[in-house]
Amino acid sequence: MQLSDQKLGLYTDFYELTMAQGYLSCHKQNQQVCFDYYYRTNPYKGGFTVFAGLQDLLDMLSDFTFSESDIEYLSTQGFEPAFLDYLRGFRFKGRLFSVKEGEIVFPNEPLVRVEGNIIECQLIESLLLNILNFESLIATKAFRIKLIAGERLFADFGLRRAQGLGSIHASRAAVIGGASSTSNVLAAKLFNIPVSGTMAHSWVQSFDNELEAFRSYAKTHPDNTVLLVDTYDTLHSGVPNAIIVGHEMKAEGTRLKAIRLDSGDLAYLSKKARKMLDAAGLNDVQIIASNQLNEYVIKTLLRDQNAAIDGFGIGTELITGKDNAALDGVYKLSAIDSELKMKFSENTEKITLPGRKQVIRYLDEDGNFFRDGIILEEEDPDKVPKIYHRVYPEKNTDVAGHQKESLMELVFSEGKVLIARKSPQEIYRFLEQRSQQLPEEHKRFISPHIYKVGISEKLMSVRNALTTKLKTLHRDNK
Amino acid sequence: MQLSDQKLGLYTDFYELTMAQGYLSCHKQNQQVCFDYYYRTNPYKGGFTVFAGLQDLLDMLSDFTFSESDIEYLSTQGFEPAFLDYLRGFRFKGRLFSVKEGEIVFPNEPLVRVEGNIIECQLIESLLLNILNFESLIATKAFRIKLIAGERLFADFGLRRAQGLGSIHASRAAVIGGASSTSNVLAAKLFNIPVSGTMAHSWVQSFDNELEAFRSYAKTHPDNTVLLVDTYDTLHSGVPNAIIVGHEMKAEGTRLKAIRLDSGDLAYLSKKARKMLDAAGLNDVQIIASNQLNEYVIKTLLRDQNAAIDGFGIGTELITGKDNAALDGVYKLSAIDSELKMKFSENTEKITLPGRKQVIRYLDEDGNFFRDGIILEEEDPDKVPKIYHRVYPEKNTDVAGHQKESLMELVFSEGKVLIARKSPQEIYRFLEQRSQQLPEEHKRFISPHIYKVGISEKLMSVRNALTTKLKTLHRDNK
Repeated sequence: MQLSDQKLGLYTDFYELTMAQGYLSCHKQNQQVCFDYYYRTNPYKGGFTVFAGLQDLLDMLSDFTFSESDIEYLSTQGFEPAFLDYLRGFRFKGRLFSVKEGEIVFPNEPLVRVEGNIIECQLIESLLLNILNFESLIATKAFRIKLIAGERLFADFGLRRAQGLGSIHASRAAVIGGASSTSNVLAAKLFNIPVSGTMAHSWVQSFDNELEAFRSYAKTHPDNTVLLVDTYDTLHSGVPNAIIVGHEMKAEGTRLKAIRLDSGDLAYLSKKARKMLDAAGLNDVQIIASNQLNEYVIKTLLRDQNAAIDGFGIGTELITGKDNAALDGVYKLSAIDSELKMKFSENTEKITLPGRKQVIRYLDEDGNFFRDGIILEEEDPDKVPKIYHRVYPEKNTDVAGHQKESLMELVFSEGKVLIARKSPQEIYRFLEQRSQQLPEEHKRFISPHIYKVGISEKLMSVRNALTTKLKTLHRDNK
Repeated sequence: MQLSDQKLGLYTDFYELTMAQGYLSCHKQNQQVCFDYYYRTNPYKGGFTVFAGLQDLLDMLSDFTFSESDIEYLSTQGFEPAFLDYLRGFRFKGRLFSVKEGEIVFPNEPLVRVEGNIIECQLIESLLLNILNFESLIATKAFRIKLIAGERLFADFGLRRAQGLGSIHASRAAVIGGASSTSNVLAAKLFNIPVSGTMAHSWVQSFDNELEAFRSYAKTHPDNTVLLVDTYDTLHSGVPNAIIVGHEMKAEGTRLKAIRLDSGDLAYLSKKARKMLDAAGLNDVQIIASNQLNEYVIKTLLRDQNAAIDGFGIGTELITGKDNAALDGVYKLSAIDSELKMKFSENTEKITLPGRKQVIRYLDEDGNFFRDGIILEEEDPDKVPKIYHRVYPEKNTDVAGHQKESLMELVFSEGKVLIARKSPQEIYRFLEQRSQQLPEEHKRFISPHIYKVGISEKLMSVRNALTTKLKTLHRDNK
C-alpha cells in the first residue's frame, strides 16, 4: 500500500460517486444545497461531546482532488467519460460554517453546515464524517480522563493498539482533549505536539541484570530518566534498584525523574513504592502508572484508593475511544436552492430538521451554559423569545434577556480557510475555558444531567408544515 | 497534515527511539535478538482470531526509513548526532518468520518472530503491533459475521464511522474476513478489492418526490439499481415506488437489482417488503439491510426471525471491531545472542516464553485442528511426543502420531519479501478452507470451547530453569 502521492478524492464512499454521476446526468450539478453535520448520542453515556477534527478536515479538503490514476481507476469501475472529466477539475469550492474546534457540544445540534453545489457537497460527506466523528470521539474521551486526572499529566501511549493509521489523528485529538503528550512520534511531528516515552521491558531484559539496565539508561538519558520497575519483581527488585540509581544520580548532580508501574495492583504498588522512595530520601521521584487505564480506573485509584500516582500513560481505551469506538455523527440534506428538505425514517430520532440553521448558546447569570437553541439562519437571534423541545412543544424555555453566542461561523469559502490555525494545545486551552462554563452536573460519568437543546418557534413551524406536505405526498401510494 | 512523502520511520513510539539511542551508546547495536508477536485474549469473547495485516506490514517495512526532515525533527527532540547518523542509513534488514495471513490462530502462541539486531527489531515494534493488532481484530470480526451470513453477501459500509485513516486497512481486513466488497473507494483502489454502493437519502430528497428519484436513478444506473426505500415511509411509499420502477425497468429490458432498508425493524419490514415484491411479480428483486448491524443482530434476524434479507451493509461495528476496539497483541524479547530472555511482571498471564520458537499444529484423524504446540526452533517436531499446559504440567496431551504442520515460515530476509503477494479475496479463500478444519465448538459466539495450546517439555524446562535463575538474581535486593 502506497499512501504517498495519493490524493484524497477517492477517500469517499462509492455511493457518493454514483450519486454524483447521477446528479450530473440529471443536470442537477448547479443546484445549491445545504447539509448539516450533527451527532445523535453523546459517547460513553456522557453529558457532552468535545468537537474536534475541524482543522484536519479543512487541510484534507484542499487535497480532495482526483489524480489521473484515480480517474483511470474510476473508469475501470464503469463511470462515464463526462463524469470523469468533471472529476478531473474537481475542487471543493463550497462554504463551511462550523462551531469552533474544542467547543463543548450536544446531541442533535448542527456542528457544521456545508453549502455548495450538490455534487461537491455530496462527495466530501464521507471524509467529513470520518474525520469529525473520530477526532470528536477521542477528544471527548481524553477530556473525560482530564476531568479526573486534574493537575496530573497523562500521556497518550496508544499507537500499538490504535486502529491502524487512525493513530495519527487520534493522538492529535487526545491532546485537544487534554493529554499532555503522545508517544506517537509521527503524530508529534505532524501536529507539533509534545512527545514522550523512555523504556520498555526489553531494555531491562537486554542487560545482564536490572540494576545494570537502570544505570545504563540513567547514564545515556540523564535528563529524562523514567525507570520501568516491573520486569522481574516490582517491590523486591525494581523499586530497590531504582532507589540505588536515584542515589547515584543525585551524587552526580542529575535526577531520577520517575519510576513507572506497568502491571499488578497500581494502588497497592504505588503506595508501597512511594513509601520506599520517601524513606530513601527520594521524595521528588514521581510515580507514573500505565496498564489498561481509563477514566473509571483512574477515578477509583485516585479518589477511592488514594493511590500515590503522579501521572499516567494511557493506551488502548484512550486511542480507540472505548467503549464506543465511534461517534454516530451524520450528514443530512436540509435545503436545495430555496426549498427546504427533511427525511423521516422509520426511527423518530432519525427525523431531520430542515433549512439553513444556526446554533445559539444561551448563558445563565453566571456566564454558564444554560440552553442551546437551533434557529433558522434567517432569524434574528434577538427576536427569538423562547426555544421549544423538538418533540413536545409544551416544554419550552424563555431565553429572552439571556446573554447569547452564535456557535457557528464561516470557516471555509472560495477554496480558502478563513480561520487561524491553532495547535492542539491551544485548542485544549479553549476547551478548558469552555469547560468552566459547563455546569458540573453535565460532567458526571453516571447519569449526567441532560443539557437541553431546543428549536425556535419558526423552525418548528417550518418543520411541521413540511412534515404535513411530505406525508401527504408520500402516502398517495397507499 | 501532509502524509505524502512522509516516510514511516517516525511511525513508532518515542521510547523505541530513546532505547535505540541507548543501545547505540552502550555499543549493543550488534546484539542479535529475537522478539515474539502474540496476543493474549481472543476478541469478542470468541474462540479464535484471524491473523491479518502481514502483507501491509511487509510493505510498510520497506518505507520504514527516516527522511532529512525526520532527522531534523529528532534533532530538535534532543537526539545525539551519532544516533541521527545511524538513522540516516537505517533500513530494517532483519528476518521475519510468520504464520500465513488468514490463518486461524489462538492466544499466547507466537504469530510472528522477528530476528535481527537489537536496534532494528526495537524500532519496528510499534508499527508491527499497530498493523497486525488492528487488521487481525477486523478480519476476525468480519469472519464472525461471515459465519452467520453464510452465502448471503455483506459489504463494508464503515468509512464514515471508521477511526480516521484506520478505515483504509480496516476495509482490507474486512475483505480478508469475508466481506464481499467495500464502500471505501480508496481502499478498493489500493488493495484491488470490489467496491459497492448506490444511493443515500439525500439522493431521494434531492428530487421533487420519491418516485422521480427512483426513476432517475434507474435511468442513470440501470446495471446497479438498488433503491433506498426508507426516506419517507418504507411500506407506504418506498416499496410501492420501487415496485413501480421495477416494473418499468422490466418493460425496458433492465432489472431492479434490490431495495435497501436502513431503519425500522428489519425483520418486520423485510418480510412485508418481500411479500409486496413477490405479489408484484418481482421475486428476483433482492432485499438488502443496513443500520447498526453486527453478527448478533444478523443471527437473530436470520435464525430467530426468518427475516427476508438477501444481503447486508455493515458499518460501525465491523470497521471498528466493536466491542473490542483493539486486539491485545504484544511484542516480547525472547533471546539475545545465545542467551534466552523472559519477563515476569506482576500479572502471571504476562509472563513470557523464552527462546526462538515455532508453532506446530496437530491435526486429528479427520484433518481437523486438534492442538497447537509451541516448541523451540531447535527441536525436531517429530521428536516431541507430548505437549504440556503452560501452568499445570500435569495436564498434557500425547501428540505423537498426529499429522502436523509448522505454522511459521520465513517471510522477510535481507530486505526482501519472500512470499507471493495475495489479494484479500485470495487470503479469504485460505481462511475459509482453514475454517473447515476448525471444529464447530470453537466457532460458537457464547462460551466457545477453548482451543488448547501447549508447550513442549524442552521449552517448559528451559523456561523453568530461567525462572529460577532470574528469581534468584532479582531477589538479592530484598
